[in-house]
Amino acid sequence: MKPNPVCVVGACLALLSLSLRAQLPAPITPAWTEVAPGVWKTTVGSPESFTLLSAAGAPAPAVQSLAALPKAAFPLDPKEIEARRWDWKTALRFPLALDEEIYGLGVDFKSMRRTGAIYQLHVDHWSGTPGRTHAPVPLYLSTKGYAVFFNTARYLNITVGHGVRLAAREKPPVIDRTTGKGWSSAPRSDSIEALANAEGMEILVFAGPTPLDALRRYNLYCGGGALPPKWGLGFLTRTPTKYSAEQALNEIAAFRKNGIPLDMLGLEPGWHDQAYPCSFEWDKTRFADPAKFLGEVEKQHVRVNLWFNPYIAPKTPLYEKLLPFAGTHLVWNGIVPDYSMPAAQKIFSDHLARTVLDAGPRAIGGFKIDEVDGSDRYLWPDSANFPSGRDGEQLRQTYGLLLQRTIYDLFHAQNRRTLGQVRGTNGGASRFPFVIYNDNYAFDEYITAVGNTGFAGVLWSPEVRGGKGEDMLRRTQAVCFSPLALFNGWSTPDKLWTHAEVKDAIRDAIVLRLRLLPYFYNAFAQYHYQGTPVIRPMQLVPGFNAALKSESGKLDATANPYAIGKITEVKDQYMFGDALLIAPIPPDVKSRTVILPAGKWYDFFTGKLAGENETIEVTPPSNQTPLFVKDGSLVPMIGERQWAPEAGEIIPLEIRHYGTQSGQLALYDDDGETFNYEHGEFSWTQLRATKDAAGAWHGTVTPGADGRTWHYSDVKWTFMTPTPSSP
Amino acid sequence: MKPNPVCVVGACLALLSLSLRAQLPAPITPAWTEVAPGVWKTTVGSPESFTLLSAAGAPAPAVQSLAALPKAAFPLDPKEIEARRWDWKTALRFPLALDEEIYGLGVDFKSMRRTGAIYQLHVDHWSGTPGRTHAPVPLYLSTKGYAVFFNTARYLNITVGHGVRLAAREKPPVIDRTTGKGWSSAPRSDSIEALANAEGMEILVFAGPTPLDALRRYNLYCGGGALPPKWGLGFLTRTPTKYSAEQALNEIAAFRKNGIPLDMLGLEPGWHDQAYPCSFEWDKTRFADPAKFLGEVEKQHVRVNLWFNPYIAPKTPLYEKLLPFAGTHLVWNGIVPDYSMPAAQKIFSDHLARTVLDAGPRAIGGFKIDEVDGSDRYLWPDSANFPSGRDGEQLRQTYGLLLQRTIYDLFHAQNRRTLGQVRGTNGGASRFPFVIYNDNYAFDEYITAVGNTGFAGVLWSPEVRGGKGEDMLRRTQAVCFSPLALFNGWSTPDKLWTHAEVKDAIRDAIVLRLRLLPYFYNAFAQYHYQGTPVIRPMQLVPGFNAALKSESGKLDATANPYAIGKITEVKDQYMFGDALLIAPIPPDVKSRTVILPAGKWYDFFTGKLAGENETIEVTPPSNQTPLFVKDGSLVPMIGERQWAPEAGEIIPLEIRHYGTQSGQLALYDDDGETFNYEHGEFSWTQLRATKDAAGAWHGTVTPGADGRTWHYSDVKWTFMTPTPSSP
Repeated sequence: MKPNPVCVVGACLALLSLSLRAQLPAPITPAWTEVAPGVWKTTVGSPESFTLLSAAGAPAPAVQSLAALPKAAFPLDPKEIEARRWDWKTALRFPLALDEEIYGLGVDFKSMRRTGAIYQLHVDHWSGTPGRTHAPVPLYLSTKGYAVFFNTARYLNITVGHGVRLAAREKPPVIDRTTGKGWSSAPRSDSIEALANAEGMEILVFAGPTPLDALRRYNLYCGGGALPPKWGLGFLTRTPTKYSAEQALNEIAAFRKNGIPLDMLGLEPGWHDQAYPCSFEWDKTRFADPAKFLGEVEKQHVRVNLWFNPYIAPKTPLYEKLLPFAGTHLVWNGIVPDYSMPAAQKIFSDHLARTVLDAGPRAIGGFKIDEVDGSDRYLWPDSANFPSGRDGEQLRQTYGLLLQRTIYDLFHAQNRRTLGQVRGTNGGASRFPFVIYNDNYAFDEYITAVGNTGFAGVLWSPEVRGGKGEDMLRRTQAVCFSPLALFNGWSTPDKLWTHAEVKDAIRDAIVLRLRLLPYFYNAFAQYHYQGTPVIRPMQLVPGFNAALKSESGKLDATANPYAIGKITEVKDQYMFGDALLIAPIPPDVKSRTVILPAGKWYDFFTGKLAGENETIEVTPPSNQTPLFVKDGSLVPMIGERQWAPEAGEIIPLEIRHYGTQSGQLALYDDDGETFNYEHGEFSWTQLRATKDAAGAWHGTVTPGADGRTWHYSDVKWTFMTPTPSSP
Repeated sequence: MKPNPVCVVGACLALLSLSLRAQLPAPITPAWTEVAPGVWKTTVGSPESFTLLSAAGAPAPAVQSLAALPKAAFPLDPKEIEARRWDWKTALRFPLALDEEIYGLGVDFKSMRRTGAIYQLHVDHWSGTPGRTHAPVPLYLSTKGYAVFFNTARYLNITVGHGVRLAAREKPPVIDRTTGKGWSSAPRSDSIEALANAEGMEILVFAGPTPLDALRRYNLYCGGGALPPKWGLGFLTRTPTKYSAEQALNEIAAFRKNGIPLDMLGLEPGWHDQAYPCSFEWDKTRFADPAKFLGEVEKQHVRVNLWFNPYIAPKTPLYEKLLPFAGTHLVWNGIVPDYSMPAAQKIFSDHLARTVLDAGPRAIGGFKIDEVDGSDRYLWPDSANFPSGRDGEQLRQTYGLLLQRTIYDLFHAQNRRTLGQVRGTNGGASRFPFVIYNDNYAFDEYITAVGNTGFAGVLWSPEVRGGKGEDMLRRTQAVCFSPLALFNGWSTPDKLWTHAEVKDAIRDAIVLRLRLLPYFYNAFAQYHYQGTPVIRPMQLVPGFNAALKSESGKLDATANPYAIGKITEVKDQYMFGDALLIAPIPPDVKSRTVILPAGKWYDFFTGKLAGENETIEVTPPSNQTPLFVKDGSLVPMIGERQWAPEAGEIIPLEIRHYGTQSGQLALYDDDGETFNYEHGEFSWTQLRATKDAAGAWHGTVTPGADGRTWHYSDVKWTFMTPTPSSP
């Protein structure tokens, strides 16, 4: 029998194909080890020892809290996870189902959803390039209830749902674009692919069962979320850069005179005798006697926050000490110390302790770490080298982390909590009490970023920088419902009381922030002890049914040649803590829509039913931000005051109950200032609101395990929602 | 004598510093070898064998032409060039003087100047990210008269004038930003730094003495610039994608009826029986008899240009053959053949020869290679692997190059010239007769790109895609003074004659393009034989004294927190060839300014003096583009015609002389269709215009070395500039 020639050709082709395929890197199926409850790790190739988690100080996972979460199996099919190694590259493929959406991958100012996105995750000052952001945390979260973290200090390329593989079992349909219907310029793939220029990588997978649980596990694995001091939840004002000690004290006095709460005073570059790069020495023309100044500040119940960028000016005492640790490149002619080296961290930390903290330990609240993100225009190039043997890319990805860790450790060693600001951070930062900020002043973008931080294990705060009355009012209202409420007056003559027409409304917003302090503090306690993000983007809220809206694209030869469609998502409202839904009002807007999740939601101010699983239109008075409370929630509040409660202070508490369901709340408290909570000095008070047979509401307070209700007393219950009168 | 304790500390610090410095990669001073006249090469580390130049077919340098350029020494201080190697990275540092400006680094749509820029050079569809462009050619040019080329198929990070080094001999002044004057957010460095993720790199340096000479050397080293067929300098129209053979022939007839010249007809995706991905098989419902259709086209003196993207649709004959060479990822469900493998190139090339060229060899003029650039939304990810062992990054950087080379070699083997379009290319492409295009429709940006190509050894053409009358007119005028004049009607019902009010002016522009064909062809001959770019951005024009205008920035807390200044540069006018300065008029603009370089410049249409070393305001009639001719120039033209001269055709020539200086021109000619010029079948006719003692102008024609004036006859001299009457 003669061989069928077609078959022979076929066989040749098959052989050729096999021999050519053999040139491709062999796929590796990684083996996963459970390293903490619901957390699995693998390593591919030879990972570098310097990673995001090592830069963040190798935080000890909060194992007990992790164990308290529901038991969970490895959340993916391990056979569907593939690694490849070739040359100096490491690639990973994770599966992505058609009905799966991906969130996370760091703080982003434009969008929440990552499915269909392609990033190079790269620490940078946001200027519109996807992936280049202040916190490009390589953590993604799936609506299927798991999260994946790439623990690498290298830039990470990540492709979510693009790039269909030849080997994919199910491929999108092949459609002739000329005549067919439904051709797509970007057919959905079944993969999330990640690539780094590295000879290996460590990867972690976090189980759910819910997406929020997966985030909790990530935050707990990183040591639990940051617990700021209570005063950190008050109000911060940053003074003009050339202010002297006297002017700074006058600023505090002006807040007090205007009845606007103030807890933190930010000193800008002018406290250094040389800035950009910095000296880390007090400027004696503006601050002749720092200790005296700080003593005065302390009397006013205010903490000072000191600005710096970490590049050291020539001809300063610190310069000589850090010069041996300098990288090959300068920033504004200042050396760039290799803070990845413990010896450099120690020199810097010791100098801060001696020059700054020793001058007024109680009055120094923290630092603002500026310009550790970029841009490329002034940061070191990737081609820089550092004495540790690390390079520009590794230091770029971790510089903010390294400095947060240095500052945090300095305060921790003194058993004093700190709250700071930082402009660049990365994965592993959950436990650091630093809030990210930037120069972006687009209202919608900075609200999007507030929400996005919930996916990233970081905190972000918008700013108010002066301007017209209405603009300042709306921005102040927005910052008061963000992790850090601040006015950044570094370069404006405006003050919060400049505009008579909005002055009272601005004050109302900040006063309400202080009144809600127990509620906010509790949200941070949940962040710390349970890993629950303080800010929850709507996509994490159970019962939020506002589906992504897809709109197919219309072909236009010049404007849309690939007929790319649009997807609309909700990014202008979010939740802070378990109970409050925040819907900020942009400047020059009188009313807006709010999408209420399933279940009943109540107006915070009136207690009245606002709606349930629906979109409502709200037109609040100008002195209010639309706030909605979930049915059955308890909102702990305190009376109006000008600064946060201090350690040992006992104050009355108001517990508001909203809705028709009974409510309960575990209310956390501790001294609010030290790390004594690490040694068990804290309490969880159990609060319950129930309705009796006669329809009357009652509140009960059960002290925590230590038998104390801690710093609150005289609990007053307010049942906000009027009982409907019988028909 | 006791040791001075300060000195001891100092000595310790010095020792510490030394030992830490030892961790830094040791700088290498590369050794340079002259590989062609005025061209030097070095290799650092272990360069990969697959480079831009190898992907471009390892073009043979035009050594004779290089030798004809002025003798030049190595243009830099070799001690100032430093390489570093660590891990899998290769970094280079080249010196940059304070009074030096850098141009090049590929086609860019926003700016010409590169000093102060930071790029990752990355093949991509332009969408606003610096460095991500259709032709990210890693070649930079210095105003000091030299050029540097990084011959790597890896993404290249390049930093021009940023990142001051600790080791720099002269550093910018240290200024306290708070109180000092003149603080800059981006102090100028003394370096150009390049970095690739590669274990080595080959680098080439091109001497001047002038910047234009350095560009010439680059183009000549790459084999000399492309010499298109004469018909390639006529007009191209692309038909709507679903057009049939009959409709396509009607389109040609409509051009002829309207008296609008036409040389090329572009068939869009609909010629394939499956597109996006492509079948490379004629669609029999629209093109039942391709040979007959192509025969009819040929009779109309038109060449067909066939669109494709190189991703192969399943269930096609080509698919089975190329499947063994497929990469790991698909594009629109089509395989991505590894065209870096000669066997895959041959299968593809053979298929095109059989399916397309054999159907009508003379009528097939070339191909439009679409979507070889990006975007990431549909291209393979960097994590893709290919059977050659190369990866997604390498294929991304070279895919357009590889396909240009395949098509060029196919036509070359048939001794027929081609002119094509390509959407992505890279370094080493000078000799390929392909013009880049994209979907960008911003008039100012596409004019900027026309100019920028002069720095990059590539050609770029804007497009007209339909629209309103005034808009179509201005865009048509612009394309007529670009390397490829085309109307892209793939997705519009509009035709060039749709709008009665501009129809005649559109026709005038295209007729003038044809009339200037000898001039344009000569510019391409200079590109091919002398390496001189056909398009010269003003920055390359001697006597162009419009300095960069710097404007210092004003601090604004929200809009400009770093007080970044602005630099204005000239990017809306350019020269085509030696004589003509083009100043395109944007849509809806009646008048514009034009900056005339030193020396006298004359209005092309009237011959009158337009100005000299000055900025003039022009308000041309709507049917004209402002064109200015350099004093003493000769502009060769032909009479009005509907298609380009064909091989063997002898036609009358008009030589226009402008200005008051005597002029001379070496006028190139050959058959305009074959590669016989490679075997000496061409001529350079010497033309001279001189004034006799009586003040009368005379023209002389000296035949070339072969004794013929080739295809031109009946030379008519027109002395355009009126002699001023005696006072």
